[in-house]
Amino acid sequence: MRLLEERIKQDGIVKPGDVLKVDSFINHQIDTLLLNEIGKEFKRLFDGSKIDKIMTIEASGIAIAAITAQHFGVPVVFAKKAQSINIEGEVYTTKIQSFTHQRVYDVIVSKKYLHEGEHILIIDDFLANGCAMQGLISLVREAGAVVEGIGIVIEKGQMSGGKELRNEGLRIESLAIIESMNAETGEIVFREQAQ
Amino acid sequence: MRLLEERIKQDGIVKPGDVLKVDSFINHQIDTLLLNEIGKEFKRLFDGSKIDKIMTIEASGIAIAAITAQHFGVPVVFAKKAQSINIEGEVYTTKIQSFTHQRVYDVIVSKKYLHEGEHILIIDDFLANGCAMQGLISLVREAGAVVEGIGIVIEKGQMSGGKELRNEGLRIESLAIIESMNAETGEIVFREQAQ
Repeated sequence: MRLLEERIKQDGIVKPGDVLKVDSFINHQIDTLLLNEIGKEFKRLFDGSKIDKIMTIEASGIAIAAITAQHFGVPVVFAKKAQSINIEGEVYTTKIQSFTHQRVYDVIVSKKYLHEGEHILIIDDFLANGCAMQGLISLVREAGAVVEGIGIVIEKGQMSGGKELRNEGLRIESLAIIESMNAETGEIVFREQAQ
Repeated sequence: MRLLEERIKQDGIVKPGDVLKVDSFINHQIDTLLLNEIGKEFKRLFDGSKIDKIMTIEASGIAIAAITAQHFGVPVVFAKKAQSINIEGEVYTTKIQSFTHQRVYDVIVSKKYLHEGEHILIIDDFLANGCAMQGLISLVREAGAVVEGIGIVIEKGQMSGGKELRNEGLRIESLAIIESMNAETGEIVFREQAQ
């Protein structure tokens, strides 16, 4: 997605350790006009797929999922990173190792909001080593629901997550795939994709 | 907002201890069509106000803020509940006592995304004792920005938060104000508001 790649080149900041900061427009401050274009693009890419619900994980996936869901006309369910006294009853649960925060989270979703046979589009801001995505996929499958597709805003193509998931036969659409980035020069190279 | 009140009566669950669970349509599973109506209603209520940015707090405020921001054509910034290695540089910080989780959070927002003189609309899902809102207001004021208004989806009118904020002269628009609720019967009474 050209508009997104240009925005990442303009406002993304490359840091040592393969960190790309996009908190000026995606995951701290949010450019809601850009997110609307992102939602439209996911709808274009997954048009014709059966999507009953969009699933994401708090916190930075929520805005993307909510705006994307408007284009699909479906609800969102977001997985939560810790047990809350406001979530009652039975939950599906998994553990996710966070690349960003270098810790392990318990991640839950209420059994009331994922059902057997539902077709789920999983949306997230980043795909790097795929740990978070594997956790979300396991929650969907635990419910007997189907991962219809995975929509990623920025995939770190130099890491293994995307490749492993595609090898499993999952359909992943990443709007921007980073081939390489250089923390010294700030240069970011994107993988060529069909537009 | 009649549509919201009807939805709360239909799908909200009253629990002992003044807990109202709306996680089937607002803060775990999200009805994005309802949120779109909520965003429209905030736009109607604050039409004519100068709004440069919408601020909220993770996680359950994000979807509401993002969809509302589309109606205003402004960005969102969401305050974060813990220091993250992906947030660098200086931050505004405050502490918030959570009614839901019965603990104290450090809440931060990057100085890059709140500026002196900006007019901020603060959006959140609930207003109860006002602790979270007081924290967000203090972050805005620490930046030298202006709290132009506060938009709440559900205000617990039997608690003091809304009254105290209105006494400070702040403009608060709550789409549904709960006058009383009964955990035994499940009955919810809303305060009459001009539609």
